[in-house]
Amino acid sequence: MKSVYITRREIFNAAHKLWNEKWSQEKNEEVFGKCSNHNWHGHNFTILVTVKGIPDPDTGFVINLTDLSRIMKEKVIEPMDHKNLNIDVPFMKGLLASTENMIIQIWEEIKLPIKEAGGELVKIKLVETENNFVEYFGGNEPY
Amino acid sequence: MKSVYITRREIFNAAHKLWNEKWSQEKNEEVFGKCSNHNWHGHNFTILVTVKGIPDPDTGFVINLTDLSRIMKEKVIEPMDHKNLNIDVPFMKGLLASTENMIIQIWEEIKLPIKEAGGELVKIKLVETENNFVEYFGGNEPY
Amino acid sequence: MKSVYITRREIFNAAHKLWNEKWSQEKNEEVFGKCSNHNWHGHNFTILVTVKGIPDPDTGFVINLTDLSRIMKEKVIEPMDHKNLNIDVPFMKGLLASTENMIIQIWEEIKLPIKEAGGELVKIKLVETENNFVEYFGGNEPY
Amino acid sequence: MKSVYITRREIFNAAHKLWNEKWSQEKNEEVFGKCSNHNWHGHNFTILVTVKGIPDPDTGFVINLTDLSRIMKEKVIEPMDHKNLNIDVPFMKGLLASTENMIIQIWEEIKLPIKEAGGELVKIKLVETENNFVEYFGGNEPY
Amino acid sequence: MKSVYITRREIFNAAHKLWNEKWSQEKNEEVFGKCSNHNWHGHNFTILVTVKGIPDPDTGFVINLTDLSRIMKEKVIEPMDHKNLNIDVPFMKGLLASTENMIIQIWEEIKLPIKEAGGELVKIKLVETENNFVEYFGGNEPY
Amino acid sequence: MKSVYITRREIFNAAHKLWNEKWSQEKNEEVFGKCSNHNWHGHNFTILVTVKGIPDPDTGFVINLTDLSRIMKEKVIEPMDHKNLNIDVPFMKGLLASTENMIIQIWEEIKLPIKEAGGELVKIKLVETENNFVEYFGGNEPY
Repeated sequence: MKSVYITRREIFNAAHKLWNEKWSQEKNEEVFGKCSNHNWHGHNFTILVTVKGIPDPDTGFVINLTDLSRIMKEKVIEPMDHKNLNIDVPFMKGLLASTENMIIQIWEEIKLPIKEAGGELVKIKLVETENNFVEYFGGNEPY
Repeated sequence: MKSVYITRREIFNAAHKLWNEKWSQEKNEEVFGKCSNHNWHGHNFTILVTVKGIPDPDTGFVINLTDLSRIMKEKVIEPMDHKNLNIDVPFMKGLLASTENMIIQIWEEIKLPIKEAGGELVKIKLVETENNFVEYFGGNEPY
Repeated sequence: MKSVYITRREIFNAAHKLWNEKWSQEKNEEVFGKCSNHNWHGHNFTILVTVKGIPDPDTGFVINLTDLSRIMKEKVIEPMDHKNLNIDVPFMKGLLASTENMIIQIWEEIKLPIKEAGGELVKIKLVETENNFVEYFGGNEPY
Repeated sequence: MKSVYITRREIFNAAHKLWNEKWSQEKNEEVFGKCSNHNWHGHNFTILVTVKGIPDPDTGFVINLTDLSRIMKEKVIEPMDHKNLNIDVPFMKGLLASTENMIIQIWEEIKLPIKEAGGELVKIKLVETENNFVEYFGGNEPY
Repeated sequence: MKSVYITRREIFNAAHKLWNEKWSQEKNEEVFGKCSNHNWHGHNFTILVTVKGIPDPDTGFVINLTDLSRIMKEKVIEPMDHKNLNIDVPFMKGLLASTENMIIQIWEEIKLPIKEAGGELVKIKLVETENNFVEYFGGNEPY
Repeated sequence: MKSVYITRREIFNAAHKLWNEKWSQEKNEEVFGKCSNHNWHGHNFTILVTVKGIPDPDTGFVINLTDLSRIMKEKVIEPMDHKNLNIDVPFMKGLLASTENMIIQIWEEIKLPIKEAGGELVKIKLVETENNFVEYFGGNEPY
């Protein structure tokens, strides 16, 4: 009846570049600009994961934030923090290291563990800089 | 036709603990961790209240923020600011002092006064720390 | 299938006042308070524009942020930055300079250019102070 | 012996322009750029006032923040909030409305009232945008 | 020759009240206002610790932030996080729980451990709310 | 007489690793932890440059922020933004890419250009994450 949305924030710092191997250097520079720099650049990423549910009468919780934080650390922070997104992260292999692709892959990594912890993942927000971020609802389109 | 959503932010500082009186101290510590500390802890809470409506042609307003701020001060800030959420706040009596329960109770306190001021309450966001917050749409589930 | 929402932030600094020419000074002061000051006041406005789409397999992009930023600069920042919203901005002529009216007008200015750049505008957020902001979904009401 | 520095933050929103009446419009535009716009622009200003002192054993206070806040509201916020800095503010008359000149004038307005409340004003910080601010130590040069 | 100042930030959430046991309730309320609430209130405290030194040529470090973070966690976060500052914290016993007294006591707790880790503690900043904070230089007065 | 301190903020995103070539991998991992990751990581760096001076009576300026911003962009942002600090930045060659070494090198790059623009560089602040930053006064030690 009374669904509440709870969000947990974590941070990680990573290197990446935007580079399409099928394209020439000129084409990569034209499309990706300075983000295509061969020697990488990096960001402080902030990730916010939102879980929906009805508060448990005994705990007042939608999900225990200890569980949500543990899942985020195991599935997102450990594989991505202080890593190279193009090289080091198994679930990003073969994909352009854009925030759009990152957020879709992260969704797949954490959806089931959150379900097993009794929660329903409904939204991820991934902040790359103070001037841009992406949001993902698992393919749903609330607006 | 052209509904706009306007949000007002207020802050309050309060003490609380997470404690289920039906449980042993061990069980409380297991579930609530350091949040179960007998002698309380506290937070700077930030509350953001969102009202939906079509701007009035004469004022350009969905709701006069003076009215919205007044309602938030009377119904939320005065009863909760510099208070103990488990002891001092009438509308939290008998409930676990989680952010989930807080946001549901706050909704009930401000929904009617906002309607009487000509607005439609559609969302509350309650921020407990820089790492966690809850959102509530009155039981609606936009996503 | 997998729609992602991407947001770009820009800022502009502008003067305005809230003043209804059909009303007496007393009525204006009663409704708009100190915002009605004859000699103007001003704000640092922050605007966040959200575009929805399925990431392009070749770029990983919903929209190239270079395009989105260019559109925001041409259509919003250039006409509004370091300007008087009541006097200098063509698309605000004849309207009360409230954030509600601003966000509706900005929507009309950027919707088509974003479409021409291959994106779908779905949300604007306009922040006036740390204590108030408005959001607009083009008239849609997700909640 | 154990001097502590305590700071109180307040905000105000104001309009201004940078304009030297002795200069031509061309010269004003050359030096002040878009800040010289005839019809004004504005900002959300944040002011932080720092008072130094030894904590009182009975209160634990360097100065009661209620007193410091009252002085800031009377001497800074009331005369400057929702005002035009070039026209409406007595202590800015005849001066260029730069943040540098504002902070020097504000110092003169609040130094004595703070002394009368038992405190020693040692620093003001005035933030104009997220990208620029000024600091003033009453003419002292700690670095 | 080339001293650099490095700062580490940590956060903790605690309850406290401002209450002088030598005074009547009336006097306490008069001086401390709502901060004197018998049943406590609380805050999200942010602490920033600054260490000065010449970067080591082999590490580029003034101090290894792992060491500084460890000291802050052992000496400040563990004893203060999710605690009652008036009751639970040994080094606050018998003192008014003001930010001024807190910052002086924290200095005494971390000064030696930082020296043993090869650093020189020169400044602490303790933020109580978005509107007030204190700074302490160990009794030194740079300005 | 009335020295004012003015600060300009810019941001850049870069990759780096902490790695001492004279050491084994084990030693590097022991000292630098995850910051030693062979494949780099990265950050959103924020740089704040402070210039001291007496406001010019004709402009109200310590320094024209247009000049300060131009110098920061030419000397810091262009060579460092979207770059690899260990490989791409001439003035970091042969140095450990710590924030301490970065801030000293940046000082040398901008000191003279700021002097030629009529200003006196007195402080740089370089923020690496929300939890750590360094400050440099050109070797001076105000505290």
